[in-house]
Amino acid sequence: MFFASDNWAGAHPSINERLSKESTRFAAAYGTSELDKAIETRFNEVFEREVAVFFVATGTAANSLSLASIARPGGLTFCHTEAHVIEDECGAPDFFSGMRMVGVDGPEGKMLPDNLVERIGRYPQDAIHHGRAAAVTMTQATEVGTIYSLDEIDTISKIAKKNGLPLHMDGARFANALVSLGCSPAEMTWKRGVDVLSFGGTKNGCWCAEAIVFFDPDLAKDFAFLRKRTAQLFSKSRFIAAQFEAYLQDDLWLDLARHANAMADRMRAGIEHTDRAKLAWSTTSNEIFAIVKKTAIDNARDKGAQFYDWPISDSAKHLVGPDEGLIRLVTSFATSDADVADFLACLA
Amino acid sequence: MFFASDNWAGAHPSINERLSKESTRFAAAYGTSELDKAIETRFNEVFEREVAVFFVATGTAANSLSLASIARPGGLTFCHTEAHVIEDECGAPDFFSGMRMVGVDGPEGKMLPDNLVERIGRYPQDAIHHGRAAAVTMTQATEVGTIYSLDEIDTISKIAKKNGLPLHMDGARFANALVSLGCSPAEMTWKRGVDVLSFGGTKNGCWCAEAIVFFDPDLAKDFAFLRKRTAQLFSKSRFIAAQFEAYLQDDLWLDLARHANAMADRMRAGIEHTDRAKLAWSTTSNEIFAIVKKTAIDNARDKGAQFYDWPISDSAKHLVGPDEGLIRLVTSFATSDADVADFLACLA
Amino acid sequence: MFFASDNWAGAHPSINERLSKESTRFAAAYGTSELDKAIETRFNEVFEREVAVFFVATGTAANSLSLASIARPGGLTFCHTEAHVIEDECGAPDFFSGMRMVGVDGPEGKMLPDNLVERIGRYPQDAIHHGRAAAVTMTQATEVGTIYSLDEIDTISKIAKKNGLPLHMDGARFANALVSLGCSPAEMTWKRGVDVLSFGGTKNGCWCAEAIVFFDPDLAKDFAFLRKRTAQLFSKSRFIAAQFEAYLQDDLWLDLARHANAMADRMRAGIEHTDRAKLAWSTTSNEIFAIVKKTAIDNARDKGAQFYDWPISDSAKHLVGPDEGLIRLVTSFATSDADVADFLACLA
Amino acid sequence: MFFASDNWAGAHPSINERLSKESTRFAAAYGTSELDKAIETRFNEVFEREVAVFFVATGTAANSLSLASIARPGGLTFCHTEAHVIEDECGAPDFFSGMRMVGVDGPEGKMLPDNLVERIGRYPQDAIHHGRAAAVTMTQATEVGTIYSLDEIDTISKIAKKNGLPLHMDGARFANALVSLGCSPAEMTWKRGVDVLSFGGTKNGCWCAEAIVFFDPDLAKDFAFLRKRTAQLFSKSRFIAAQFEAYLQDDLWLDLARHANAMADRMRAGIEHTDRAKLAWSTTSNEIFAIVKKTAIDNARDKGAQFYDWPISDSAKHLVGPDEGLIRLVTSFATSDADVADFLACLA
Repeated sequence: MFFASDNWAGAHPSINERLSKESTRFAAAYGTSELDKAIETRFNEVFEREVAVFFVATGTAANSLSLASIARPGGLTFCHTEAHVIEDECGAPDFFSGMRMVGVDGPEGKMLPDNLVERIGRYPQDAIHHGRAAAVTMTQATEVGTIYSLDEIDTISKIAKKNGLPLHMDGARFANALVSLGCSPAEMTWKRGVDVLSFGGTKNGCWCAEAIVFFDPDLAKDFAFLRKRTAQLFSKSRFIAAQFEAYLQDDLWLDLARHANAMADRMRAGIEHTDRAKLAWSTTSNEIFAIVKKTAIDNARDKGAQFYDWPISDSAKHLVGPDEGLIRLVTSFATSDADVADFLACLA
Repeated sequence: MFFASDNWAGAHPSINERLSKESTRFAAAYGTSELDKAIETRFNEVFEREVAVFFVATGTAANSLSLASIARPGGLTFCHTEAHVIEDECGAPDFFSGMRMVGVDGPEGKMLPDNLVERIGRYPQDAIHHGRAAAVTMTQATEVGTIYSLDEIDTISKIAKKNGLPLHMDGARFANALVSLGCSPAEMTWKRGVDVLSFGGTKNGCWCAEAIVFFDPDLAKDFAFLRKRTAQLFSKSRFIAAQFEAYLQDDLWLDLARHANAMADRMRAGIEHTDRAKLAWSTTSNEIFAIVKKTAIDNARDKGAQFYDWPISDSAKHLVGPDEGLIRLVTSFATSDADVADFLACLA
Repeated sequence: MFFASDNWAGAHPSINERLSKESTRFAAAYGTSELDKAIETRFNEVFEREVAVFFVATGTAANSLSLASIARPGGLTFCHTEAHVIEDECGAPDFFSGMRMVGVDGPEGKMLPDNLVERIGRYPQDAIHHGRAAAVTMTQATEVGTIYSLDEIDTISKIAKKNGLPLHMDGARFANALVSLGCSPAEMTWKRGVDVLSFGGTKNGCWCAEAIVFFDPDLAKDFAFLRKRTAQLFSKSRFIAAQFEAYLQDDLWLDLARHANAMADRMRAGIEHTDRAKLAWSTTSNEIFAIVKKTAIDNARDKGAQFYDWPISDSAKHLVGPDEGLIRLVTSFATSDADVADFLACLA
Repeated sequence: MFFASDNWAGAHPSINERLSKESTRFAAAYGTSELDKAIETRFNEVFEREVAVFFVATGTAANSLSLASIARPGGLTFCHTEAHVIEDECGAPDFFSGMRMVGVDGPEGKMLPDNLVERIGRYPQDAIHHGRAAAVTMTQATEVGTIYSLDEIDTISKIAKKNGLPLHMDGARFANALVSLGCSPAEMTWKRGVDVLSFGGTKNGCWCAEAIVFFDPDLAKDFAFLRKRTAQLFSKSRFIAAQFEAYLQDDLWLDLARHANAMADRMRAGIEHTDRAKLAWSTTSNEIFAIVKKTAIDNARDKGAQFYDWPISDSAKHLVGPDEGLIRLVTSFATSDADVADFLACLA
């Protein structure tokens, strides 16, 4: 019953198999191998246009380098107040990009468009003292398991564009959001105005594979130097490429995300049918936030379930009774029906 | 005939097998799993003392973070003029540590002690304008395949200590140097005064596994933050740990290095027995630098051999005839007798 | 009628005279002259203890270097959400210190203690992902003209100390706060637990003179390097020292601040006696925030008055009528009775 | 007898007078006053073209921000091995620009063109590991008192241009070089291909006035943010502008430099006529390097002369006898005939 995070899972057998195969041969280092090049090109197909792709190995690296690539001196990046880039990456985005992250409030992990407009308005392009608006970054799926609809992405994107700001998407759980929306990668990104994407594979079945995707290759012209200067160019880069090859092959990545989301659906349905737990807010990805009786929480832990307590924000306080707790449950490609059933049994 | 670099090799079967096994299970993320902890502790045995160990994934990260951990404001780090940290890491050491790398000359890739003394002397501890000496870093084995003897390490170390400077060792090819010297890891490091070590696994059979080893755990007290802030904390960190488990098991790492060095010995012996090539300088690691007739170089390349031309420094110019070139050949755990024989045949 | 800012004033005649005298002689450069040393020592008397003092030339430099001196990797600095360090220094504090500024809300420009406790609590010392609490900085007088009482400083200081965090005070308007409270420099700083102080002279009659004062000289051991590395060591540093000599001589600095505050008192009194304006909130320093009929604002501007409109925050919206505006008025050592009277006449 | 450095002098009476006048009035802060704008425009006349000008207060700031303005990720800046930017600014250029300084050898403080070509050649534009050539910076007059001729500037500039690199000139002693060459500011800069200039006033009669001059205003588009973010935007910036107004008025700056150079000429002539001293190398600026009998050195110091011993480089060792020392003598606008005569008397 591992629901602590999708990064507690291992690697999918197909990805492992492809890694094993890769281990037996020689190839050029530092991303110059034919495999690296082929997989970079493979992303053109995935996104239905020419893109510039760079492999890195952690989500923090992908986000921080994405922001570094669009940074401007004295620039500010707007993100949700609970975004990973501001709250969970120990300042790496600030360090790599030289920009400050500015939190924008909004319910359910999404920046409220009016708040974004208001915040950007405080930092006009000649604001030498305050700093100037320089980028917007949104997380899809969000930190709290919700998903921006295509229209919502559109709205954020138009605000960014109107202010001349590039738009980054943190897609650590890109696939989970994609299959939930049922759209194409293109529709969820550049067709809505996303300029740079952190395309995550690690949480969805790879062991370490993240890609930075530039929809305008011109934005990437200095990127190879930014990546090397931050120690993210791997000598055996082709092992990242190999993971992505298997990941993208025959839509494996979408199948894995669909499985994770389906397991979450089942968990959500189960929670809604119990008296001892309820959903804290509605999610459609592989993350579930539930308000659960403390006795049930203890029971689940006693039975070996792994999950995290979640901090109760001011706006959620009235939802959580004194004998209840707020917990996060994350499913993954490796979650089984039995895991979900066992967990639900703990709540019964 | 892959002699371009040891990082063109794949991963050793034992390491691959251990990775495969790891892929099937769940475990805590971000370096907190039992496996991570166990392997960190394993390094205590390897080095015969309590050490603080942190896993990262590239050699550049290991070096740059090692230097960051011992950095001082306005500090300068002394390294050989051809060291990886100054010439091959795109400024990552400067960026992560905030220090400038100062080149120290010396023959065969080793800092000449007198030169080191002289250089350090230019930057005393109150030199606010010049900057102050803050660290010494040495590469073992060096960029040009040579190895500091234990006495030579001792000499460098004493200079560092006398000036109050911590000593870092870039051990991207630590194992190759170790088996060449035939000493213990302890003898080549902390017993000679090394304070921080970049312990490389990638070039010797892992696919991405580097460790930073602090011989004084106190030096590491802020390190977890430095690592996260530079995007080098892996969610599935245990896959690095798993590689190291296999790597260190039953002295696999030493066997792999011995094999690579033996292949290099064979190559060296072959070169010395041909009329069309000669060794540029003496090496005892898995790197060979050879002066070879251009016709032979072309012939080898035609037959598919992979290797790099090496820039001819001023001091080497008189050695290389107009019809000759300087090339670098690197063997690895994956180099076979047949590869070496085939290459030597090209020179015949 | 110059009420835009106290930094629109020139330099006080005594300070100018001292600068003129300094211009005629030779002296050692880079802060090593006898004058530099003497004035550094003079601060010991001002603060009634041994302090370490460093001269810089801008308030932004003083704040940013103060924070750099107490920075820790992955560290966060807590400040009021409207503080100069977070909103008006274009990220210099982040750049020099490597830390992120975290805003803490509170009415009238002061951090609310409960909010500070809550915010610090989110970033415990082992919070590798979130970052760890590393420093607290408070502004005295605040950005909105209010002043922390000695008890309020005490409260903030105790929170910082309890959490092991050094406390910085941004004293760009230190003198104005001091004479308003009527206490000694020691009482407003180290006796309340302030560790590092930005001691401003520029806004109160110097042309460019700021000092960083360390109440624990040990904190300053690397500071000379931090200052040089950020280009803030002046070759003719003694001209800053000379300004401070005149500034501190015979309590000139306190007299100048008293004058500025008295002019503000007169302005406040005048505003309270008019129908066309009212104070937005109570201040006791040389800054006044007033809600004024737009017709009166226009009239004042027509007559040549210089002052800034102030952004109306959400919490202030209900105070400001549709035919009114919020303005900031700042008095200085150079403000005359006539200036104040002329301005008040514009409101009549 | 103050010959330690030209920055030991005070400020010229005309500049002091202008500062005094400025002290009595109010004006807009942060470089937005009419005076700031007028003096920025004044530089157009000085340089006979439209330039973008920014005031800062230290030479280190001018150099470091100039380099920051032309920085590229992974970029390297080429300078003479003894240049101020690499040896005397405590890493500020590296910190502000994110680039590494690469030393280029050459006699008498000037980069040898062949060496520059060779060095640049090592770092081509696709050198992700080594870093890429990004800028050239030359010092005029050099650290050792010599001056690049117009032809020599041309040669350096053409190398830079051929490699697509912007050219910066560190003109801390710009005026001294200019009057020595007897050319116009335009001829010594943009007409020879200089892109960015650190225009120094401090060493030549100001107390703190440095300007960064962009000959292509497009290069300056982000500069206001770079300056603020490094704490170099002065609230009372107009005091810098006022210094420059007096400095540039009626060619005062050229007269001051001519005087300093003339005093140096007299000193050189005197040294050449004594048996106890000789010139170490030929200079035509206000810096003199002399090999002097130790007895004479002691005698001069006993009589109160201020000057620095200079490190004897390897190439100069054969010039300096065992009973001799190498000293540096710097004259300034404030040096008198009597000072020179008194010093020469010490050598007699």
